[in-house]
Amino acid sequence: MILVLNENYEEKQFENLVNWLKNKNFELHVSKGQNSTIVGLIGDTSSLDTDMMESLDIVKSVKRIGEPYKSANRKFHPLDTVIDVDGAKIGGGNFGMIAGPCSVESEEQLCTIAKRVKESGAGFLRGGAFKPRTSPYAFQGLRKKGIELLLAAKAETGLPIVTEIMDISHLPLFEDVDVIQVGARNMQNFELLKELGHVDKPILLKRGLASTIDELLMSAEYIMSGGNEKVILCERGIRTFEPKTRNTLDLSAIPIIKQLTHLPVIVDPSHATGVAKLVEPMSLAAAACGADGLIIEVHNDPPHALCDGQQSLTPEAYDDVARKVRAILPYSYKIGK
Amino acid sequence: MILVLNENYEEKQFENLVNWLKNKNFELHVSKGQNSTIVGLIGDTSSLDTDMMESLDIVKSVKRIGEPYKSANRKFHPLDTVIDVDGAKIGGGNFGMIAGPCSVESEEQLCTIAKRVKESGAGFLRGGAFKPRTSPYAFQGLRKKGIELLLAAKAETGLPIVTEIMDISHLPLFEDVDVIQVGARNMQNFELLKELGHVDKPILLKRGLASTIDELLMSAEYIMSGGNEKVILCERGIRTFEPKTRNTLDLSAIPIIKQLTHLPVIVDPSHATGVAKLVEPMSLAAAACGADGLIIEVHNDPPHALCDGQQSLTPEAYDDVARKVRAILPYSYKIGK
Amino acid sequence: MILVLNENYEEKQFENLVNWLKNKNFELHVSKGQNSTIVGLIGDTSSLDTDMMESLDIVKSVKRIGEPYKSANRKFHPLDTVIDVDGAKIGGGNFGMIAGPCSVESEEQLCTIAKRVKESGAGFLRGGAFKPRTSPYAFQGLRKKGIELLLAAKAETGLPIVTEIMDISHLPLFEDVDVIQVGARNMQNFELLKELGHVDKPILLKRGLASTIDELLMSAEYIMSGGNEKVILCERGIRTFEPKTRNTLDLSAIPIIKQLTHLPVIVDPSHATGVAKLVEPMSLAAAACGADGLIIEVHNDPPHALCDGQQSLTPEAYDDVARKVRAILPYSYKIGK
Amino acid sequence: MILVLNENYEEKQFENLVNWLKNKNFELHVSKGQNSTIVGLIGDTSSLDTDMMESLDIVKSVKRIGEPYKSANRKFHPLDTVIDVDGAKIGGGNFGMIAGPCSVESEEQLCTIAKRVKESGAGFLRGGAFKPRTSPYAFQGLRKKGIELLLAAKAETGLPIVTEIMDISHLPLFEDVDVIQVGARNMQNFELLKELGHVDKPILLKRGLASTIDELLMSAEYIMSGGNEKVILCERGIRTFEPKTRNTLDLSAIPIIKQLTHLPVIVDPSHATGVAKLVEPMSLAAAACGADGLIIEVHNDPPHALCDGQQSLTPEAYDDVARKVRAILPYSYKIGK
Repeated sequence: MILVLNENYEEKQFENLVNWLKNKNFELHVSKGQNSTIVGLIGDTSSLDTDMMESLDIVKSVKRIGEPYKSANRKFHPLDTVIDVDGAKIGGGNFGMIAGPCSVESEEQLCTIAKRVKESGAGFLRGGAFKPRTSPYAFQGLRKKGIELLLAAKAETGLPIVTEIMDISHLPLFEDVDVIQVGARNMQNFELLKELGHVDKPILLKRGLASTIDELLMSAEYIMSGGNEKVILCERGIRTFEPKTRNTLDLSAIPIIKQLTHLPVIVDPSHATGVAKLVEPMSLAAAACGADGLIIEVHNDPPHALCDGQQSLTPEAYDDVARKVRAILPYSYKIGK
Repeated sequence: MILVLNENYEEKQFENLVNWLKNKNFELHVSKGQNSTIVGLIGDTSSLDTDMMESLDIVKSVKRIGEPYKSANRKFHPLDTVIDVDGAKIGGGNFGMIAGPCSVESEEQLCTIAKRVKESGAGFLRGGAFKPRTSPYAFQGLRKKGIELLLAAKAETGLPIVTEIMDISHLPLFEDVDVIQVGARNMQNFELLKELGHVDKPILLKRGLASTIDELLMSAEYIMSGGNEKVILCERGIRTFEPKTRNTLDLSAIPIIKQLTHLPVIVDPSHATGVAKLVEPMSLAAAACGADGLIIEVHNDPPHALCDGQQSLTPEAYDDVARKVRAILPYSYKIGK
Repeated sequence: MILVLNENYEEKQFENLVNWLKNKNFELHVSKGQNSTIVGLIGDTSSLDTDMMESLDIVKSVKRIGEPYKSANRKFHPLDTVIDVDGAKIGGGNFGMIAGPCSVESEEQLCTIAKRVKESGAGFLRGGAFKPRTSPYAFQGLRKKGIELLLAAKAETGLPIVTEIMDISHLPLFEDVDVIQVGARNMQNFELLKELGHVDKPILLKRGLASTIDELLMSAEYIMSGGNEKVILCERGIRTFEPKTRNTLDLSAIPIIKQLTHLPVIVDPSHATGVAKLVEPMSLAAAACGADGLIIEVHNDPPHALCDGQQSLTPEAYDDVARKVRAILPYSYKIGK
Repeated sequence: MILVLNENYEEKQFENLVNWLKNKNFELHVSKGQNSTIVGLIGDTSSLDTDMMESLDIVKSVKRIGEPYKSANRKFHPLDTVIDVDGAKIGGGNFGMIAGPCSVESEEQLCTIAKRVKESGAGFLRGGAFKPRTSPYAFQGLRKKGIELLLAAKAETGLPIVTEIMDISHLPLFEDVDVIQVGARNMQNFELLKELGHVDKPILLKRGLASTIDELLMSAEYIMSGGNEKVILCERGIRTFEPKTRNTLDLSAIPIIKQLTHLPVIVDPSHATGVAKLVEPMSLAAAACGADGLIIEVHNDPPHALCDGQQSLTPEAYDDVARKVRAILPYSYKIGK
C-alpha cells in the first residue's frame, strides 16, 4: 500500500502516522520530494481499509498494491478449484451446463424440462422457487412448494439442483438442494454471505448489476472466510446506458477473473441479455473466452412462462446451443496456454 | 399498456391473445396498420408484468402508460406524507436534519456528537451499529452493543435514532429504534422489505447504486403494500464512470420523485460523494431543488473514525452547513409553486 | 409511431394535432380510454423527430415502432454488404483481419510489423498517423509523414491500409488511403460524417464510448445518406464503472447489429480492454459471436511504443491469436442458422 | 508519479528504466519491499503519458500524483478567471445568464425571445445555427443564415451571442460571434480545440456525455495551450442507466471543478435533463452549489420548436426561474468561505 501525503502536513502529524504504522509492524519506505511525500507500506495490509487510510487528515490518496482477498486469490492457491456434486463438475477444465426454467411452475413442467435438458447434456437443473421480483404484485415463486418440486425432478432425473436463496431464514428449506444460488441483488447481502460460509454446499454467487470484479471477489471472500471454499462465480451482465439488452454482458470479466482467482466462473446469457435470440451467440462467446460453464433458462412453453419468458429457450433451441457449445469448446481460450 | 405486435403473426395467435386479455377484463383498442398492429389495453394493468407480456411470441414490444406503483403514487394520494417521530418531522414542508457518525464506536463518542448536532439543529441522530462492509476483514460494527449505545444517546439527548438493519433476524434488536434504515445494497432485498411492511415504524429506504427511480418506488411499494406507509426515500448517489466522487449524486431525482410520489425524499451527500468538502455545496444544492431533508455524517474526530472518516464533517463544520442550509431553504424549489 | 396523450388535454389541441398529422399524410388510429388517449401513426415516420413530437404540449410520450435508419436497415437490404478492397474482404462470411501499430513511428517499424502481420494472415495494415490524445502535451502522431510511411509499407507488402482521420481539412492527405477510420470520439462529428458520405472509399466507423447501438447506426446513416454505402462498423468498448478494463467490450452488440443492419461489424479488442493479455480471449469471443473481423494492435517492441503499448501484442503473440481465431471460426455463430 | 513494478523483473530491465528516467532529469526514490518494488518520480511528469508508462514491461501500474493540466490548474493560477464580453461577465463572482432558443428559426422568433430574456436579466443570447442531430433526416439548423439572424438580434438588443461551431471550416462565419460554443459531442475533437486555441474569443466548452472531469480539463488545456485562456466550462449531464432524464446532471462536478481550476463553470439544465419542468429546480441547485452561470433554452412557442422543444421554457417561465435564481444566489456555496 502506498500513501501519498498532503502537501502541507505538520511534522507532528507525520510522526504520529509513522509511529502508528510501525506499531502495526509495517516496514515503511518514505520518499520526500519537492511537492509530495510518499510512504510505502510493506507487510500484510489486508487488515487496513483503503477508505479509512484515505480519511486520515495527512493522507491525500492511497494506492493498494496487493489484492484485499486471500482465500479467493490465485496467488496463494494457483490450482483451479473444481466443484464436484456427485460427479457433476464445474471448473478445472470441466465445463458445467446448468439449465432449467426461470420459475418452477408445476411438476409436469419441471420434469419435462429436466429430462430434455439432461438429454441435451446439462449436468445441473436450475429453477426458481423463491423469485426476486421488482414488483410486489408480480408472481413471487412457489417458494417451499417449488423446492419440493425441484427435489422431485432431481429424484426422477438424477440431476443435481441449483436454486436461489433470498433470506437466511429460508436456509432449512435448502437442506437437500445441491447448489445454493445467491442472486445479483443479494451479492452484497453480507449477513447472508456469512451464513453461507458455514454451509457445506457449493454457492453460486452472481455478480451484482453495479458491482466491480473486485467487489465480486470480496463477496466470495465473505463466504470463504467462513470456511466454505466451494464458490462458483457468475457473470450475468452489468447495468449500462445501452437499452437494446436488459444488461450489458461483461465477457472480459471472464479471463480477468480467471487470472485473479482459482474459483470457477460461469456465464448467464439469459439474464444478461434478456433476449432469447442472443443466448446462442453469447453462449458461444462465453465458452470461447474461457468460461467454466453456462446457466441458461429453458422453458417448454416460453410464451406462457410466469416470468422472464422473453429470455427463455425452448428445449429444442437449448439442445442446439448445447451442441454448438460443445463443438466450440476445444478451440476456446485456456489461461496460461 | 400498449402492445406492438410482430409483423407476421398468425390470425390464430391474435385471437388467443385477444381472448386471453378480454377474459382478464381489459378493454382493447386494436389498430391494424400496413406494417404493424397495435393493441391498447384499458384497465388496471398493474397485475401484468411488462417482461411477461414482451415474452409472448406475438408481441414485439410493450409500452406501459401508467405507473406500476399504487400506494406510493401521488396520483392517488396527492397530499404529501409527513413522517412524525414524537414531533420530529420530515416531509410536507418539514425539512428533516439527520446527523451522526458513520459507525457507533463508544458511548462518549456518540453522546458528544449527539449533543453537538442537536445544538446545530439536527432532529434525528444517525449511527451505524450493523455496518455493511465490502471486506469481511473490515470492522463490521458494534452490532447489538451499538444499538444499546444509540438508545443511551437517545435517552440523554431526546433525539430519535436512525440506524440500519442488515437482516430480518436482527429485527427484535430494533424494537426501540425510531427509524429503521435500509441500505443501498439491500434496496432490493425483497424479503426484508416485506417484513418491514409489517413494522409500525418509519423506514428510511436508500436508493441502490444501480437502481432506477422506478425501482426505488417499487421497493417502497413492497413496504407499503404490507401496510406500513411510513417510508422516507433517500438519494445517495448512483454508480457512473466518474472517478472523482465515490458515486454520482443524482439530484434531478429529487424533483422527479416528488412529482411521482407523496413520500418524502432526503439526500445523503456524505455517502454520495465520499468527500467531506463536497458535503456543504451538495447539501445546499439538495435543499435548493426541493429535498425534504439531509442525512449527514458527523464525527468528533474524523481522522480516527473506524470507517468512512473521509466523508465525515466535524461538529463545527456541520454547524456551519446546517446554518447555511436553513438560510437557503426559503429560496428553494417548491413543487407546484 | 405511437403517441400517448396527456390526460387532460383540450379538444381544440386534439383537433390541431389530428389535422397537422393528416396534412402530413399519416393515417391515424385513435384509441380513447378512461385514463389515456393513444394515437397510432401509420406512414413513413422517419421524418418525424421523437424529441420534437414529445415536445408537443398535448403529448405525454412517444414510442417509435420502426427504425429511424433506412440505408443501413437490414429490412430493406437483407443481403450482407461485403467490403472489398482489391480482393481483401470484410463481411458476408469474409472475416477481415486488420493489424498494425497504434502509432506509425518509422518506416522500419512499420514495414517490419506489416510483413509479420501479413505472414500471420492479416488482410489489412492499420497504423495511426493522426492520433487523438487526451493531453495536448502527448505525442500527436507523425501526421502527413505518417501517411507517407503507411503508403510505403503498402507498396512494400501490398496490404491495403486503414488509418484514422481527425478533421475534414486533412481529407486530401487520405487520397491513397484504402479505408478511412472514424474514431470513437468523432462518431458524432456529423460534419465529418457528411463529408465522408461523398468519398468513394470504405469508412471504418467506431462506436463512441457512450453511444447506443441505434446512434452508431444513425451515424452510419449519415455517411450512407450521402451516397457512400461502404461502411464497416466497429465495437470498441463502452464506458462503465468497471476499472479493470479501459472500457467494457459490449459483445452482445455484435449479434444485435447483425440483425439490424446488413453492414459488416468488427471488434477492436485492443482498445476495448487496454490490456494485451485480454486480446486473445476477447478475439476468440468476438469471432464466436459472429463478428466479421478484428482490428488488433501489434507492435514489434511493445514496451517502447509511443502510445498505448500496454494494449499491443508482439508479432509472435499476434500470430498465435490469428491462428486460434481461424481455428474457432468454423464453430462460430452464424445469424439465421 | 509512482511506478509499481512487476514482481519478477530482471535486474537489467530495472537498470534500463532507472537510466532512462534519470536521463529525463527525474529524481528517483526507490523502495524495494518483499513483494513489490516502488519507484517514485520527482520532477515535471506532465510530459509522461500514464498509458505509455504502464505499457513498459517492467511496470505493473502507475499512479499520477500531480494533475496533468497546467494552464487550467488553480494551483498555478489561484485567482478566478473572469470572462468579460463588453461588460457581460461570467466567473469571479459574476453569475452569467445565457438564454435563447435551441435552434434559430426566424428573425421574428429570435428577436422576440432575445428581448424577453434580456428583460428577465439574461446577459447573453444563445441560439443554434449549426445543429448536431442524431439523424441525418432531422433539421440541421439554418447554418450561415442562422448566424446572420443571431447578429441581427444582437444588433437589436445589444446582447452578446453564443452559438455552436461544428467544424473548423465554418470558423470564418463566426467572426462576429461573441462566444463560440463547443458541443458535448465535440469535446474531444482535438483538431477543433487546437484551432480555437488561436482564436481571440471566449470558448464555451461543454462536457462530453462520457467524459470525466479530468478529460474536460484536458480539453480546456488544448485550447489554453494554444494561447486562448478564455474558456468557460459547462456541465450538461452524463450518460447513465436512469431513463427518467435524458442525461444525469452531475452537480458535484461544479465544486470539484472550481477547486481544480480557475476557469468559470456553468450549468445547462435544459440539455442535462431534457425536461422543461426540471429546469427550475436544477437551476436553483446549480446556483446553490456554486456554479458561475446557467445556459437555459427559452422558446416563445415551445410546442412548435424545430428541435428539443420538450426542454424549453416559455419566456414567462424563464422570467420566473431567473428571478428565483437571483434570490437564491446570496445563499449559495462560495469556495473557500
